[in-house]
Amino acid sequence: NVNKGSMNGAGNLMDFLDEPFPDVSTYEDFHTIDWLREKSRDTDRHRKITSKSKESLWELIKSLLDAWSGWVVMLLIGLLSGTLAGVIDLAVDWMTDLKEGVCLSAFWYSHEQCCWTSNETTFDDRDKCPQWQKWAELMTGHAEGAGAYVLNYFLYILWALLFSFLAVSLVRVFAPYACGSGIPEIKTILSGFIIRGYLGKWTLLIKTVTLVLAVSSGLSLGKEGPLVHVACCCGNLFCSLFSKYSKNEGKRREVLSAAAAAGVSVAFGAPIGGVLFSLEEVSYYFPLKTLWRSFFAALVAAFTLRSINPFGNSRLVLFYVEYHTPWYMAELVPFILLGVFGGLWGTLFIRANIAWCRRRKTTQLGKYPVLEVIAVTGITALLAYPNPYTRRSTSELISELFNDCGALESSQLCDYVNNPNMSRPVDDIPDRPAGPGVYNALWQLTLALIFKIVITIFTFGMKIPSGLFIPSMAVGAIAGRIVGIAVEQMAYHHHDWIIFKNWCRPGADCVTPGLYAMVGAAACLGGVTRMTVSLVVIMFELTGGLEYIVPLMAAAVTSKWVADAFGKEGIYESHILLNGYPYLDVRDEFTHRTLATDVMRPRRNDPPLAVLTQDSTTVEDVETLIKDTDYNGFPVVVSRESERLIGFVQRRDLTLAIKNARQKQDGVVSSSVVYFTEDAPQLPASNPQPLKLRRILNLSPFTVTDHTPMETVVDIFRKLGLRQCLVTRSGRLLGIITKKDVLRHMAQMMNQDPESIMFN
Amino acid sequence: NVNKGSMNGAGNLMDFLDEPFPDVSTYEDFHTIDWLREKSRDTDRHRKITSKSKESLWELIKSLLDAWSGWVVMLLIGLLSGTLAGVIDLAVDWMTDLKEGVCLSAFWYSHEQCCWTSNETTFDDRDKCPQWQKWAELMTGHAEGAGAYVLNYFLYILWALLFSFLAVSLVRVFAPYACGSGIPEIKTILSGFIIRGYLGKWTLLIKTVTLVLAVSSGLSLGKEGPLVHVACCCGNLFCSLFSKYSKNEGKRREVLSAAAAAGVSVAFGAPIGGVLFSLEEVSYYFPLKTLWRSFFAALVAAFTLRSINPFGNSRLVLFYVEYHTPWYMAELVPFILLGVFGGLWGTLFIRANIAWCRRRKTTQLGKYPVLEVIAVTGITALLAYPNPYTRRSTSELISELFNDCGALESSQLCDYVNNPNMSRPVDDIPDRPAGPGVYNALWQLTLALIFKIVITIFTFGMKIPSGLFIPSMAVGAIAGRIVGIAVEQMAYHHHDWIIFKNWCRPGADCVTPGLYAMVGAAACLGGVTRMTVSLVVIMFELTGGLEYIVPLMAAAVTSKWVADAFGKEGIYESHILLNGYPYLDVRDEFTHRTLATDVMRPRRNDPPLAVLTQDSTTVEDVETLIKDTDYNGFPVVVSRESERLIGFVQRRDLTLAIKNARQKQDGVVSSSVVYFTEDAPQLPASNPQPLKLRRILNLSPFTVTDHTPMETVVDIFRKLGLRQCLVTRSGRLLGIITKKDVLRHMAQMMNQDPESIMFN
Repeated sequence: NVNKGSMNGAGNLMDFLDEPFPDVSTYEDFHTIDWLREKSRDTDRHRKITSKSKESLWELIKSLLDAWSGWVVMLLIGLLSGTLAGVIDLAVDWMTDLKEGVCLSAFWYSHEQCCWTSNETTFDDRDKCPQWQKWAELMTGHAEGAGAYVLNYFLYILWALLFSFLAVSLVRVFAPYACGSGIPEIKTILSGFIIRGYLGKWTLLIKTVTLVLAVSSGLSLGKEGPLVHVACCCGNLFCSLFSKYSKNEGKRREVLSAAAAAGVSVAFGAPIGGVLFSLEEVSYYFPLKTLWRSFFAALVAAFTLRSINPFGNSRLVLFYVEYHTPWYMAELVPFILLGVFGGLWGTLFIRANIAWCRRRKTTQLGKYPVLEVIAVTGITALLAYPNPYTRRSTSELISELFNDCGALESSQLCDYVNNPNMSRPVDDIPDRPAGPGVYNALWQLTLALIFKIVITIFTFGMKIPSGLFIPSMAVGAIAGRIVGIAVEQMAYHHHDWIIFKNWCRPGADCVTPGLYAMVGAAACLGGVTRMTVSLVVIMFELTGGLEYIVPLMAAAVTSKWVADAFGKEGIYESHILLNGYPYLDVRDEFTHRTLATDVMRPRRNDPPLAVLTQDSTTVEDVETLIKDTDYNGFPVVVSRESERLIGFVQRRDLTLAIKNARQKQDGVVSSSVVYFTEDAPQLPASNPQPLKLRRILNLSPFTVTDHTPMETVVDIFRKLGLRQCLVTRSGRLLGIITKKDVLRHMAQMMNQDPESIMFN
Repeated sequence: NVNKGSMNGAGNLMDFLDEPFPDVSTYEDFHTIDWLREKSRDTDRHRKITSKSKESLWELIKSLLDAWSGWVVMLLIGLLSGTLAGVIDLAVDWMTDLKEGVCLSAFWYSHEQCCWTSNETTFDDRDKCPQWQKWAELMTGHAEGAGAYVLNYFLYILWALLFSFLAVSLVRVFAPYACGSGIPEIKTILSGFIIRGYLGKWTLLIKTVTLVLAVSSGLSLGKEGPLVHVACCCGNLFCSLFSKYSKNEGKRREVLSAAAAAGVSVAFGAPIGGVLFSLEEVSYYFPLKTLWRSFFAALVAAFTLRSINPFGNSRLVLFYVEYHTPWYMAELVPFILLGVFGGLWGTLFIRANIAWCRRRKTTQLGKYPVLEVIAVTGITALLAYPNPYTRRSTSELISELFNDCGALESSQLCDYVNNPNMSRPVDDIPDRPAGPGVYNALWQLTLALIFKIVITIFTFGMKIPSGLFIPSMAVGAIAGRIVGIAVEQMAYHHHDWIIFKNWCRPGADCVTPGLYAMVGAAACLGGVTRMTVSLVVIMFELTGGLEYIVPLMAAAVTSKWVADAFGKEGIYESHILLNGYPYLDVRDEFTHRTLATDVMRPRRNDPPLAVLTQDSTTVEDVETLIKDTDYNGFPVVVSRESERLIGFVQRRDLTLAIKNARQKQDGVVSSSVVYFTEDAPQLPASNPQPLKLRRILNLSPFTVTDHTPMETVVDIFRKLGLRQCLVTRSGRLLGIITKKDVLRHMAQMMNQDPESIMFN
């Protein structure tokens, strides 16, 4: 019975929050949530549980379970996302190697595992063992020769095409939301937007499977962004176990923020970096409680991954490196140059990628996603195979570039001319002249750099799961290693130059090219994503030493500054803008002098604001208003003459209340008067039964005056997470500002296309 | 000319923000700031600079300098706070040793430096060298014997008394604000409160000097909290170089947040931990920009400290440790027990310390601060000297407790019974039975634990600079080491027990007592301060390995939960409450069902709200109102009958505008009518000249309806940093809620003393 009266406003409000209409889901798809309302609903729920808990032991236990449910969800998220990350790593390892050959002793072994278990492997030839056979060898019996090469080449492309075709088909058929990196959408969701199914079970399953396929296909993409999406899907999944989280969109977003931290934590093995990434890059509302819980989830996920031990080295981190020499002040110059390169790469990548994605959206190209993926995979495989640095998986490439050359290193990059008189300990090797291997490697690396730069622009944004952390880092690592080797050779050959004199005597070990690769990777990643602190912390967790924070910081900050000079948006914000998501960026400073009155609706020539009066509207009037407009709610005023605001009523509550009343309540007809006042007057029996709707009226709508600067209004929308705000002057209702109006106004002020913002 | 008209509200507002009265300082002492107003003033300033920068090259350069000033301030803060921390460390080292003896070769050398430079020191007797003489030896020629002991004992106490007397006198005479840890006050200041002089130059100077004296006197206090205060003073000092920061209280607080991070960074050598400490524990408003800048300041500070190298080991961190064995799952039980101990210690300490501080405030005790310090120092020195673990400085003690016992360790704690057949490498020593030295140490450590627990309660809060990180960590480290040794001996003697069977075979190195000390220290610090993430990160930066995060996290979280069960407030919040600072804690959840109408003034039986009308109040009326009330501002309404709100005017603006008008503007007399409307009506010449004051009227005061739940109101005050908020119903002005009202209401709801909150 909707009409049940209650005596005061508080009671009304609380009853209202009890959701009297159980058949209403709270928000519609592609709508924004009202953070304040979600928060007060949660407080109310909490209050109810606390007061009940004094009644019986069972209620007390239930209240304790409720209090602990947050930590339980975190534990589950950590366990599942750690496990999934481990499984993905193992599967990618196996399938990447499957493109080249197969393990005869057990076909589910990757190349490394295969030769690891083999007794016949010597230390020098770790990756050659009889059990591992390339396809040509297996099929024709010949391991060498042009024929074998061509056959292997052909099969490599074939496998790549098969994997990517499977990936794009699965995405298209089962879960269209599983494509891309997912971070732009997660940022939007966390800011309070509803995208149903984006974090659903199907998306989780398909994204996990297709991520393995996409990475294995050898395309220029990484698994880090998608892993954040996968972890958020896990978070959403476990939210549904507890009504505390499943029924409250605000609380759900707290869990998702923590899940994002767990995702980065397993992607890099960097739990602290993950928490900071969630804080700096992804999250919108991040209270301290979420900080603690994120940290817990990130730790659990990292340790779950470590116990699965997919890299076989019981290291947590993706690229473990240890350097033996410190860095010198003069090296800051190349580090800062790498930062500039990173910033330029970031700008180039974002502009080119956005232009390409816009083209995909607006032209025929977007209609053939499968064909596009197949074509890009084909070109990638065709060009990647001949170059040893692009043929292998990108994370292996980065790993090798980061590595310092020890004495036992067999890599081409470590082919220095050895001094026969050398009698130093294993790991302390002085700088030496580069051998032919290094020059060869430099040549191949340059080709790989150009290839990666071009192909990544076309790859990111296709209809398969694709992250861009790894490709960006690869670009930076290649450039960094090249610069590093150049500096090292310069220091060796010109150690009498004034700049090298003090820190690079002949025979000293003074330049670490691997460090340059790492700095370059940080710079390029920073240029693309514009993160700084979390990036440096992730890198710090990789090396585990404070020593190299200054070079990393210098490169990351330079790259951010350079990239910011060309455009404020990072890649995620650019994709948010491209897709027109209603995302109110915390970082954009709104500095224009407009006032609330310039933004509110109705505009000058518009029809007047659609309002209800508290005691003179009939049911029919209301129904007409609902039919004629598509607003989410209507302000209620004392009378049209006084324009004094008394509250705000949601469209859906109104629709349902009238429907309910017409069905269940006798005497409510079209000519019944709707009352929003506390007491309806006693009417003569001849008049139709009045409909009292105060209980669905929100008596505390948010208001600002028409003279409020838009800067303040933007701040209020951001910090309080409002959906709409009413505008008054001297107590009279003038108009309404919705989040969409704010976003459209901001876009106008920045000369962007205001019409691209998704509805509400 | 105050009366200069301008055409629209925006213009008015902006002119108003230009501060037309240059003789007004923005806020009074002990008042709260209006964050929204500060922010819009900064945006306005920024807008002006941007538009000017297009005019000439010089203006462009000025605008660039302005944009970079934030980073310059950070650099300066990092340099100065790093330098000060280094100087403090060196001075403390020297003066602590001065209590025991002097270096003959150079009196300004500390014991370690003295013997380090001596050639006659052997490796075994690193701290014995002829140049270093104890006082007794120097004065009587006898180094040993009862007489020498008594003389050394006596001089130790005398030096301690001298140092602490100097410290307390300097504080009392020159800078009363230099006492205590400073963190509660800094938290309050960062939340928007004005305490003039708290971060002034005198405080900086005196706090630096007295901190050295206080720490050297051997009292149970640390330098970490005061270092945060010192860094914030540096921040405030450099703010005054740039009008961007010195003239805007909001921007100034951004700098102070970053300075706090730099303070912790140099206190522990943990830059990331410092940033998280500032974020988790100290700061109120922490935008992303501040995150980046804090990180920069923290890094600069850490590297400045490292280049000063006060510890002589070119390590950045205060307690560098390296452990050689991993931890085992079963050890989580003692770790969690240590967490429980930490939580209990935290509760005990906070309750006892607050009770003692309250006693100091309310009884005669507070009148004799010098005597109190002297007495506590005397007792501390008297009891500390005989026990070797309390005689030395607390940080040395912690350092020794954290250390793993290597083969070369000469400490009593490492006096294990050696197995003569042992032929293992230096650092890999199996568990062995404890020797007499260890038993002796256990006994002394137990006494030290009791002593530290009791004396710290009385020390924290005296009128000298005193931090409690180090004493808390000492308590935890002692308890942890005792537990660690117990577990180790148990594992050695009972390695056949089922629990030890799998991980502690005889001759294995399986328990690291130093790790227990570290976990205990984290637990106790967590219990007292309730920080978790930043604590774990600081500890992680000390060890530099992810390995030990789980034990630390388990202990920190357990300790927080246990302590929270006894009372939500950490030590800093407790001191804020004790001192009645108007601090609106972000972490307190307000869950009561009260409404704005229950909190607003006027209350039921109060006189009506003091309001001005827009066009019917005379100058005399206004002056009477100002004289009769002490409100900070007055709402302006259309008329007393309609009660329609049009704006809010600040008391100080009103006072000054009337004063100015009476002096400069002809015809403004007591009977002049004050107009807040856009245009004053044309009055006959016989009427006195009207006074137009629209330009000082804030046309966008913040309003809520009387039915708004207080929970939402609290949220709005917190997130937007309001000073006051007007309450309306149906467009009629009903009352006002100030920050003080909100705090008083929250205190009432939590049954605390609502009258103790400082005015405004």
